[in-house]
Amino acid sequence: MAASLFYAVVPAGGAGTRLWPLSRAGNPKFLLDLTGTGATLLQQTWDRLAPLTDGVVVVTGTRHADAVAAQLPGVLPHDVIVEPSPRDSMAAIGLAAAVLAQRHRDVDVVIGSFAADHVITEGAAFADAVRTAVEVARRDLVVTIGIDADHPSTAFGYVEMGEPLGDVDGAYAVEAFTEKPDAETAAEYLATGRYRWNAGMYVMRARVLLDHLARFQPTMHLGLLEIAEAWDTQDRESVLERVWPTLTKIAIDHAISEPLSREGGIAVVPASLGWSDVGDWRSLAELIAADGGTSVLGDSSLVRTIGSGGAFVVPATGRAVVVLGVPDAVVVDTPDALLVSTREHAQQVKVVVDALKAEEATDLL
Amino acid sequence: MAASLFYAVVPAGGAGTRLWPLSRAGNPKFLLDLTGTGATLLQQTWDRLAPLTDGVVVVTGTRHADAVAAQLPGVLPHDVIVEPSPRDSMAAIGLAAAVLAQRHRDVDVVIGSFAADHVITEGAAFADAVRTAVEVARRDLVVTIGIDADHPSTAFGYVEMGEPLGDVDGAYAVEAFTEKPDAETAAEYLATGRYRWNAGMYVMRARVLLDHLARFQPTMHLGLLEIAEAWDTQDRESVLERVWPTLTKIAIDHAISEPLSREGGIAVVPASLGWSDVGDWRSLAELIAADGGTSVLGDSSLVRTIGSGGAFVVPATGRAVVVLGVPDAVVVDTPDALLVSTREHAQQVKVVVDALKAEEATDLL
Repeated sequence: MAASLFYAVVPAGGAGTRLWPLSRAGNPKFLLDLTGTGATLLQQTWDRLAPLTDGVVVVTGTRHADAVAAQLPGVLPHDVIVEPSPRDSMAAIGLAAAVLAQRHRDVDVVIGSFAADHVITEGAAFADAVRTAVEVARRDLVVTIGIDADHPSTAFGYVEMGEPLGDVDGAYAVEAFTEKPDAETAAEYLATGRYRWNAGMYVMRARVLLDHLARFQPTMHLGLLEIAEAWDTQDRESVLERVWPTLTKIAIDHAISEPLSREGGIAVVPASLGWSDVGDWRSLAELIAADGGTSVLGDSSLVRTIGSGGAFVVPATGRAVVVLGVPDAVVVDTPDALLVSTREHAQQVKVVVDALKAEEATDLL
Repeated sequence: MAASLFYAVVPAGGAGTRLWPLSRAGNPKFLLDLTGTGATLLQQTWDRLAPLTDGVVVVTGTRHADAVAAQLPGVLPHDVIVEPSPRDSMAAIGLAAAVLAQRHRDVDVVIGSFAADHVITEGAAFADAVRTAVEVARRDLVVTIGIDADHPSTAFGYVEMGEPLGDVDGAYAVEAFTEKPDAETAAEYLATGRYRWNAGMYVMRARVLLDHLARFQPTMHLGLLEIAEAWDTQDRESVLERVWPTLTKIAIDHAISEPLSREGGIAVVPASLGWSDVGDWRSLAELIAADGGTSVLGDSSLVRTIGSGGAFVVPATGRAVVVLGVPDAVVVDTPDALLVSTREHAQQVKVVVDALKAEEATDLL
């Protein structure tokens, strides 16, 4: 195959529950400008990937398809793949791979999956890592970009690096993928220097992914092929309606990465990307904040703090916000809901959202 | 003099700065329902006094005269005395005394001054104390109602009780008035059992007050008499305009109580009134709160707290408020300004308001 294409596949789903009340089911994290740059996380992701690729395919849900198209005027309509319902990352990425393979039957298509709601500040390092990963992927490996861990996080899975691949600089064999560790284990990981965070950035030939899927998830493989064949035809809706609900809900890490790593089929390209998953208010505050100072996402002229070092305020209503004597306060002021918390309790915002779900306060979700 | 009247004089002024952002210059504390009963502090004061008196005179500023009249449909128009500008409590109470003495030349008028913005939960005890104070006042003494101190507060002045008066049960000579003490001194006061809080509740014959004023503040005395003579005539405005600005700004405690106590001219009626000056968010929270629980001034269905024992929330915009992991939080949510603080920092709200004044943020004051 002479021709070769590299497509980015961007799964754009997930409400970003721990960023409530700014992030909502109807207005999720990837549609928000969380860094005060004027660009949403989705737009930043697209801007980062478009120059590196031959195309960017966004996989999103029916509820957000219009918003995705509106935020990405450069995206081609047929590059927005709309899932009828969320069925986890393997179905989303597998569908994109199958559709792209179907559309480009005589071409070598490499795909890379990149979440729509992460932040990367080191654009040049990211571009380098992606180029290296594509080169390795052409050797029929599945390649993950391994994020340099700057602290022993218990919030992420890790990838354990093995020996250098030899034929491509900056790429290593993967020994194993691990689940989110406890604090002690995370500290041990960091001390060895051999572990990187797994941020779900996978680069591989579409055909290689589909072949592995055929082995590890044969039913899903057949279902995705059937959908892909119908995708650009008038049968799309009827096939989707019949097949999509039958697909196993499983993450790509469990479906492919873990079993394949035991066969030596995965490589890792370690990289320092200034990466953040912006998973909660604490991580966003750390991304934005001056050390010990007050950080504001929005119009800082609305915010006054006294005796509240490390405060993080989102003044999203135009109202004045005064924080007095609450160090590390997190105050998120939206038109219908107000959150008052601290960085330390950022993870527990999920508890709040769960409670709202339990009481069926759907207008606040 | 056969006839005898007892009038309450209610100075209604003061913004209640430390209750920002609910209390504002244009909508001050006494005009607010701060206890969730449906009645404002001014209305509660009037309801408490009307049954005990022959009339209630409210002394307020031009800015609030209409609101006072609107909140008190039972008040007679000529019982709202409007000051052209604030000149502290001696001028306000002295003016009411002079006007009442002028209106009731042949009658023994006793007056009692009671702030418009305090809370009293023990209405029967208050009525008893007032009746006792009026009886003592008929002996030409100035009588103060001394509040049982339930903690060594540094926020109030104290009155030191001496020997029982003898001829009226429940009344004592006053040894001295004291300024706000430091914490150590306040604890010593409490330990003796002889000190009561001075809440500025003074009961005395109008004539007695004016006679003392003639001795201690002769210029003010003459000025107030001149104003009072013109009050119910067409000359009121012109005389007010000329004389009022010349009156010394001084509190009644300094003008009368302190010098008179050194002459033995003051008595005290101690009483347990469930009194609070609702001076800041902490004192309001303590007034409303269940111990260690969350207290809400307003619609409690809007408020959810997790890990925030002792939180106090004022949801005054209809928005949902979530407090997560901030014990003793104070959250006051108003349409144009939000305060996030803790009970511990309640006193410092004044610092916030001073800062807003300094930056001339008048729309927030």
